[in-house]
Amino acid sequence: MTAYSDLSAHFGRIAALSNAIGILQWDNDVMMPKGAAETRAESMALLQVMRHGLSTDARIGDWLGEAESDGSLGAWEKANLREIRRVWTVDTALPSELVEASSKAISACEMRWRQARADADFAGLLPYLAEVLNLQRQIGRAKGEKLGLSAYDALLNDYEPGGRSAKIDGLFDDLAAFLPGFTQEAMAVQARRPALPALEGPFATETQRALGLKFMAALGYDFERGRLDISTHPFCGGADNDVRITTRYDETDFTKALMGVLHETGHALYEQGRPQAHLNQPVGAARGMSLHESQSLLMEMQACRSRQFLAYAAPLMRESFGGAGPAWESTAMWHRYTRVEPGFIRVDADEVTYPAHVILRYRLEKALIAGEMALAELPAAWNAGMKSLLGVTVPNDRLGCLQDIHWPSGGWGYFPTYTLGAMTAAQIFDAACKAEASILPGIGKGDFGPLVGWLRANIHGKGSLLPTDELLTEATGRPLDAAVFKAHLRQRYINEV
Amino acid sequence: MTAYSDLSAHFGRIAALSNAIGILQWDNDVMMPKGAAETRAESMALLQVMRHGLSTDARIGDWLGEAESDGSLGAWEKANLREIRRVWTVDTALPSELVEASSKAISACEMRWRQARADADFAGLLPYLAEVLNLQRQIGRAKGEKLGLSAYDALLNDYEPGGRSAKIDGLFDDLAAFLPGFTQEAMAVQARRPALPALEGPFATETQRALGLKFMAALGYDFERGRLDISTHPFCGGADNDVRITTRYDETDFTKALMGVLHETGHALYEQGRPQAHLNQPVGAARGMSLHESQSLLMEMQACRSRQFLAYAAPLMRESFGGAGPAWESTAMWHRYTRVEPGFIRVDADEVTYPAHVILRYRLEKALIAGEMALAELPAAWNAGMKSLLGVTVPNDRLGCLQDIHWPSGGWGYFPTYTLGAMTAAQIFDAACKAEASILPGIGKGDFGPLVGWLRANIHGKGSLLPTDELLTEATGRPLDAAVFKAHLRQRYINEV
Repeated sequence: MTAYSDLSAHFGRIAALSNAIGILQWDNDVMMPKGAAETRAESMALLQVMRHGLSTDARIGDWLGEAESDGSLGAWEKANLREIRRVWTVDTALPSELVEASSKAISACEMRWRQARADADFAGLLPYLAEVLNLQRQIGRAKGEKLGLSAYDALLNDYEPGGRSAKIDGLFDDLAAFLPGFTQEAMAVQARRPALPALEGPFATETQRALGLKFMAALGYDFERGRLDISTHPFCGGADNDVRITTRYDETDFTKALMGVLHETGHALYEQGRPQAHLNQPVGAARGMSLHESQSLLMEMQACRSRQFLAYAAPLMRESFGGAGPAWESTAMWHRYTRVEPGFIRVDADEVTYPAHVILRYRLEKALIAGEMALAELPAAWNAGMKSLLGVTVPNDRLGCLQDIHWPSGGWGYFPTYTLGAMTAAQIFDAACKAEASILPGIGKGDFGPLVGWLRANIHGKGSLLPTDELLTEATGRPLDAAVFKAHLRQRYINEV
Repeated sequence: MTAYSDLSAHFGRIAALSNAIGILQWDNDVMMPKGAAETRAESMALLQVMRHGLSTDARIGDWLGEAESDGSLGAWEKANLREIRRVWTVDTALPSELVEASSKAISACEMRWRQARADADFAGLLPYLAEVLNLQRQIGRAKGEKLGLSAYDALLNDYEPGGRSAKIDGLFDDLAAFLPGFTQEAMAVQARRPALPALEGPFATETQRALGLKFMAALGYDFERGRLDISTHPFCGGADNDVRITTRYDETDFTKALMGVLHETGHALYEQGRPQAHLNQPVGAARGMSLHESQSLLMEMQACRSRQFLAYAAPLMRESFGGAGPAWESTAMWHRYTRVEPGFIRVDADEVTYPAHVILRYRLEKALIAGEMALAELPAAWNAGMKSLLGVTVPNDRLGCLQDIHWPSGGWGYFPTYTLGAMTAAQIFDAACKAEASILPGIGKGDFGPLVGWLRANIHGKGSLLPTDELLTEATGRPLDAAVFKAHLRQRYINEV
């Protein structure tokens, strides 16, 4: 055995354990009876401790040192070593007491958050959230010391390898300057449209599910390596070669669940398209959260909210639900699926206003981690940001800074990946359509073969072979900037009315 | 920490891992898309290796030695030590090469068996099965050496702790002498009944499921700690506090799936009724396979195929399916559910003829393990046994010695527990009804509270506190014998026509 093959076998075991955890987590969210919660939590905790034991195994350092001087390795193997070193550096950066303290603080804070959100009671959450923040700052500092990064960039790096706030600042400042005025413009255009006729329900869950499955098949989802189920919070999860997505049906409105299915299918296509030869190795993993979100948003926002797709999809919707009248026409459907309306809640936001929610959170969490703002000031700063970025007056903290679970659950540094993903999606979709003329006409016929073929070759099949910037430059000719995203918004919301 | 608390914590971890494996196995059989098979097999193999590592941990021997001389322990703790020593003795009896060789031989043999059964090709299976048998013999000898048992008894002991073939020989010889004549008698009685009118389908799956759920609730199944789903082979599985059962629906005949659900509910009630305070310890486990089977057969054969239950259930069946006519009357339903008919296939056999299938397999596997019979002689010996015990002439090995997966999959020593379970069920049900007069009238009203209450106190809640013989003696006043089972058959099939 060479050091490389030892490493590879070891990470294969870590993948086998992660796959088990992935399925147990899916079951937890989709199938588990509620009386099993405690038993399941014990199993999950044990498997996570076992995985941590494997991923911090002292032999990894020795194997890495030896393998990195092995001249016989190819590009994938070298990239695998780069990824293994990155993960291992981070995994071994934290003293186990800090990991444990953080895990406990998060559990307590999440539980308190559910109540505090319901009660719009920020003061009640404050001490719990302060503890989580304090520990996140320590975690960021400990990782940052090893990586030569600020605490915030070190946290961000876990979700977005190679992501740096200095670069995000520039991208987000560009967008923040553009969006408020653009939103007004788009809404003015929208106001000149005829009133949107209502879709008359009810829409049976089984019919919604059947239509979702039909569109998943059109997008190229492989049902032999996945499933569609129901959960409270839609997600894409599971394991290698077992990529499961979920949705939540509302019998008074099918449009959200349907578009949610297409969004999760975008995530799933990425997971199903990762390189089979390296599936259980770090180099075979998805490249990062912004690229992952780009794949869901490429399908949802770029492809499936397009006029072309909705011209194909609207008649199928009408036929499935036995609808009739102008509400079911494809232009009405397109107007419905591209409606702009500033609001308080991020997860309900449309394509145009969503980035403002993210930019606000990004700026706030960066200041909080850096200690430039006191946590007690969060509600006021939040509400001021919502006013200036979106022009809305937040009535209470339930609809304000208490709405998301990310901060209570320790997900600091995650938020920017949503909007990086939206920008990346626009840039990739634009490049794909320019490279392959059959993509847009294909989408108009429900044939996603050309699009997915291009994505397989240029994104999915590359796994973590290249750093994100290089991957994007190879695929689109340049690193990420805001220009294509802004042009896309202008085209869809102003020009293409 | 005392040695006992170290042991207890260690076995708590083993339980957490076993619970994870249980849910992954359930998912494998119920939910998993087929393209995930290889990935899942890797996860399962890893978790099983990890569990084996925990259960053969060298510290267990030291902890056991110390804890066994701890005078402060109570009855449950002492029984837990007894169980831990039993399991540990067996788990550490085998060299790892033997475990691995056996696991490989079983995989190869199972795969070959599927084809051989389809082709009725015993000769094609022979070399694979010979290898499995050879390794089972070695495993039995290695365990037997540690336990002071014959190879066969050592294998049996894994499924039926304390079970001994010398005792089973006596019980089964008793039954074997009784059954052929009794079967003829019962069929003569049956022949004098009016012809059984057919139930006209189809019977929608959803209706079958709803009725199954209704009866599960009547039996006392706790839906907050379990689920009902569909799988090719019905089973009861899952994890502590997460006891899941499955069935398989046939829209032309609801009676099998419905009774199958009641059978699995019997298993599930045992699992859900194990002592909460000891759920994750060996002493909290179900007592053994014959007692487990006794709980499913008590519900299915003793309670739910009774005249009393079917008088309550038949009108509900009729109402659910909108049935009409004499086929739906409770006496017809009882005749249908107590029909006797010798056949080739064990899993299709009725209550009267089932033991003959088991006795044949038991005698054959005992002779094969002892080397008293050559494997090549199996088909002829099988067919001769079927002729003498059941009076049927087996047309080919697909309907003969190739029908069950147990031997190809290494389950030698398992078969007798089916019929021990049937006898145990009769003895327990008889004792329960004598101790608690409200049980039978309750069953007649769909109220299983008195029955389950008695089982909770006398069987389920005891876990593995007592050896099987003692548990049964405490509950029924005597160790297992064939008398009550024979009396039950005589009452149901001769007297109570």
